[in-house]
Order: sequence, then structure tokens, then C-alpha cells
Amino acid sequence: MTNFTEKTIHSEHIFEGRVIRLQVDDVTLPDGNQSKREIVKHPGAVAIIPKTKDNKIVFVKQYRKPLEKTLIEIPAGKLEDGESPKVTALRELEEETGYTTKQLTYITSFYTSPGFADEIIYLYETSDLKELVEAQSLDEDEFVELVELTLEEAEEKVLTQEIHDAKTAYAILYLRNKGMKE
Amino acid sequence: MTNFTEKTIHSEHIFEGRVIRLQVDDVTLPDGNQSKREIVKHPGAVAIIPKTKDNKIVFVKQYRKPLEKTLIEIPAGKLEDGESPKVTALRELEEETGYTTKQLTYITSFYTSPGFADEIIYLYETSDLKELVEAQSLDEDEFVELVELTLEEAEEKVLTQEIHDAKTAYAILYLRNKGMKE
Repeated sequence: MTNFTEKTIHSEHIFEGRVIRLQVDDVTLPDGNQSKREIVKHPGAVAIIPKTKDNKIVFVKQYRKPLEKTLIEIPAGKLEDGESPKVTALRELEEETGYTTKQLTYITSFYTSPGFADEIIYLYETSDLKELVEAQSLDEDEFVELVELTLEEAEEKVLTQEIHDAKTAYAILYLRNKGMKE
Repeated sequence: MTNFTEKTIHSEHIFEGRVIRLQVDDVTLPDGNQSKREIVKHPGAVAIIPKTKDNKIVFVKQYRKPLEKTLIEIPAGKLEDGESPKVTALRELEEETGYTTKQLTYITSFYTSPGFADEIIYLYETSDLKELVEAQSLDEDEFVELVELTLEEAEEKVLTQEIHDAKTAYAILYLRNKGMKE
């Protein structure tokens, strides 16, 4: 195949935040010309599809400031430094839902916005949920509400756009495709 | 439901690029405390699932600088100022694949990274492709290669991670779910 690799000439650091970093790279294009690439660096994240014994999916409802909207999503969260995705997945499941599990199954991973960001999401599922006796605490700036829905109810919320993000849309299609059986 | 809305106290403009803008908002949290939100503003995008008469899907292979990797994705592109998603979808289909169509069907939309970005992708499909007599030109910093694959071949490339982004993973699951019939 043709090699379209872009060589970095210079990388300008623009911003370092708590969640993301921003840099602008000067690159050499395949035709020898130069261009700039705006790049958001993200630590990566996990998302979990938690299914209860009575065949419901556990979602969290939360306000998303970038959209100025409240969305219903599958539980998810950022990787901490050096943390393996599976460890993050269990931690986020416990913190956001109050459930724990001994069986997290890896499904797939995907980049969310390869045009401008390096964020990757590792997706897990579990149908072996147990309520935690002692609730785990959320991050101090995190406020979520649990929502347990059947697959059909979740699909209705895709239509009303209460569910409206890529990882959750993927999760619902994944369950529909599997027939939501274990 | 509980109202978790976060009120903006102050919005600091950090960066304005060709593709994205970055701002940091000081917000009041539901418990009255304050926090900061790092927000990437994006114009929004479209993606298209183009199916040929011999039951193949048209993908584009391109280098993604944020990942330092070449990925195979469904055709996609950013909304221009004031452009409706359907117009963008036809333009991007023509520019990236050399095909045109009279029949673009809207499937769904989703936010790609609601935690830190407002990017939304509008997803379309078409199975009424016609080769353009005169090729449309790509953006001057865009280099793509066409790849036509059956659904089974595409699913293999998910496993090898040549296909590794959310919109394309969703598209493949969508086609699998439909049985890829029209």
C-alpha cells in the first residue's frame, strides 16, 4: 500500500489540563508539502456493559458540560496513570453503579475521534453483578444517577436522543446483535 | 429526575485552530462547589456507509496523525460553516471515494466523546453508487486510498485493528445486524 505517514517537524505544546492535553504539530505531508495537525491527547478510557440478573442494562445519567445536556450512557471512565483497562473498568463500575463483579469480559476497543484526538475506549461486559455493601465514592466533581433499562427501553431512548453517544449506541447494537443472551 | 446541570461562571478561551477550539469553563456543580471543565469545540461531522452493487462496502485508508497510525474507516468529514449534514455527506462521499449517489439515507447520530468534546457525527448509508466521471479533489492536506471490502473482510480487519474507530465499528455492527440486505 501507499505510505501516507506524516512526519513531525515540530510539536507545539498548547495546553495541559486535568483530562486532556493539546498540541499542534507541524508535519510533512506525503506530497512533501507542510501542514498543521491539531491533536488532543487523552489518557484513554473504559466503558462497561453491566447486565442485571433480570435482564436489564445498568446505565448512568449525567450532565455533559461540553454538550450542555444530560445523557444516559453506559458506565465509563478515564484510565489513571499506569492502570490497566480491566482495573479501571472494575473501579468505574463500582464507583458509578454500586455494583461489583468477578467476571469482566473484554469485547473490543475503538478510537472515538481519530481525526483530532487519540482517545481510545476499551469496552467490557459483565452479567455477574453483585451489589456492594459499602458504596464507593465518585470523583468529587462527578454526579450520576443510575438508570436500569431493558434493551427495548434503551432503544427507545436512542430514538428520543436521551442516549446519544457513540460507545452507548455501539453497546446497544452489540446487545441487539447478540440477542442479549449469555 | 435530579437536576445535575452545571452553571458556567466563566469561560476561558484557550485555542482556536482550523478544526477545533479549546476552552476551559469554571462551573458551579450541583452541590454548590466549583470545578473546571476542559471543552473541545468541534464543527460536527458526517460519515457514510457506501455499499456497491456487488455487496462491498467502500472504505478509505488514511493516516491519522493523533494515533500515528493508518486506519481503514468509512468515508467521513467535517461540516463546513452553515452546511447541512446531508450536503456534507454527499460532498465527502464524492471527494473521498469518487462515487456519487442520489439516495442518501440517514441512520442515526452520536456524540463521539461527550466527556470533553461536543463533536457529533451524522451517519448515512447509500447503496445507489455511481462512479463520478470527473473526480472531485480532496482537501490539499488529505491523502486517502480506497478499500472495498465485504462485510466479512471488514470484520476481519476489526480483529486485526486496521479498522479501529468508533464510527466504523458501529457501521459494521449496523450492517451485520441488518444482515446487510436492502
